[in-house]
Amino acid sequence: MLLNNKLFDNLLNAFRTLPGVGKKTAERYALHILSSTEEEVHTFVETISQIRKQIKRCSECQDFSDTDPCAICVSTERDGDLLCIVEKPSGVMAIERSGGYRGKYYVLNGLLSPLDGIGPEELGLSRLFQKVIARKVKEIIIATSATNEGEATALYIAHQLKPLGIKITRIAHGVPMGAGLELTDDYTLRQALEGRKPLEG
Amino acid sequence: MLLNNKLFDNLLNAFRTLPGVGKKTAERYALHILSSTEEEVHTFVETISQIRKQIKRCSECQDFSDTDPCAICVSTERDGDLLCIVEKPSGVMAIERSGGYRGKYYVLNGLLSPLDGIGPEELGLSRLFQKVIARKVKEIIIATSATNEGEATALYIAHQLKPLGIKITRIAHGVPMGAGLELTDDYTLRQALEGRKPLEG
Repeated sequence: MLLNNKLFDNLLNAFRTLPGVGKKTAERYALHILSSTEEEVHTFVETISQIRKQIKRCSECQDFSDTDPCAICVSTERDGDLLCIVEKPSGVMAIERSGGYRGKYYVLNGLLSPLDGIGPEELGLSRLFQKVIARKVKEIIIATSATNEGEATALYIAHQLKPLGIKITRIAHGVPMGAGLELTDDYTLRQALEGRKPLEG
Repeated sequence: MLLNNKLFDNLLNAFRTLPGVGKKTAERYALHILSSTEEEVHTFVETISQIRKQIKRCSECQDFSDTDPCAICVSTERDGDLLCIVEKPSGVMAIERSGGYRGKYYVLNGLLSPLDGIGPEELGLSRLFQKVIARKVKEIIIATSATNEGEATALYIAHQLKPLGIKITRIAHGVPMGAGLELTDDYTLRQALEGRKPLEG
């Protein structure tokens, strides 16, 4: 019986470290593992172990990569004049999926958060600024998320880089494509109104 | 960049083997793994590997257990006259949690499903019947789920065991405690009406 079994509880706790996994979900995963063959479980854990060893941070852009520098950083087909700053590796994935960008990236791996003790130093922003200067970047697109911390980080970076005379833009916020106004939250709607553009009629 | 990275795709596929995990969830889990320390990942995979090796089937009741026979099967405090038949180990956990049962268990680890080629042989029902006879069980409570297959399996077991003259019961189906009639599906409501009991006024 698995109820109050120490090993099983350990497994539940292990699964609960995954984002968004609660008690019920952890239990389903754990029972799935127990019902799998030893070979299936071996493949599962090997895949997890291996990737953690083989995928590291690119020393140039801080994104996850199995090469260093990563494929985007070394690519001559990408526009080195453009640098897109994102919060997390998932941001690079999302923008690459959209197909709307051909420049390079820099991954902050965090946002400024004074309350959590994360200032410019902790975020390694001086390193970013040195890179921007060394690479003679011409436009910086700040694509941090539309949260208070994302906005504050964007403003801080823009302020610090202003003396360099580089063009600095922020991705547009507004009503998602295909979404009705009635389903759009107030904050997004305000941003959409502020960011309105002239329509060529 | 992780988009179209073979190692990352392998990890996504590994997570997608877990029940109910789609593309987005797998991606969140995978990024969590990459953001964890090597030690955290090691602990995570070790916990999964270890449990699969240490928790086996109890040879008596077929439930998962780290001992064989399991704690319930060897317990002298549990009523050996009562045998509750469940489909899966999660059924034992659910009934134990309810605190409403002090007998022993037998886990079918499946249900009769002729369309999928699972007959009494594949389910090992003759083994169950031998156990019932050998242990001189006095009452069998069939707690398979309230699905077509669960009902069919319950009926088959009851039919086969009838000649032994053992009391055979099926757990009651009806309106869940706390649930309104308007939220109860038709099938459950029909079962609740059929299973009505006299009220002592």
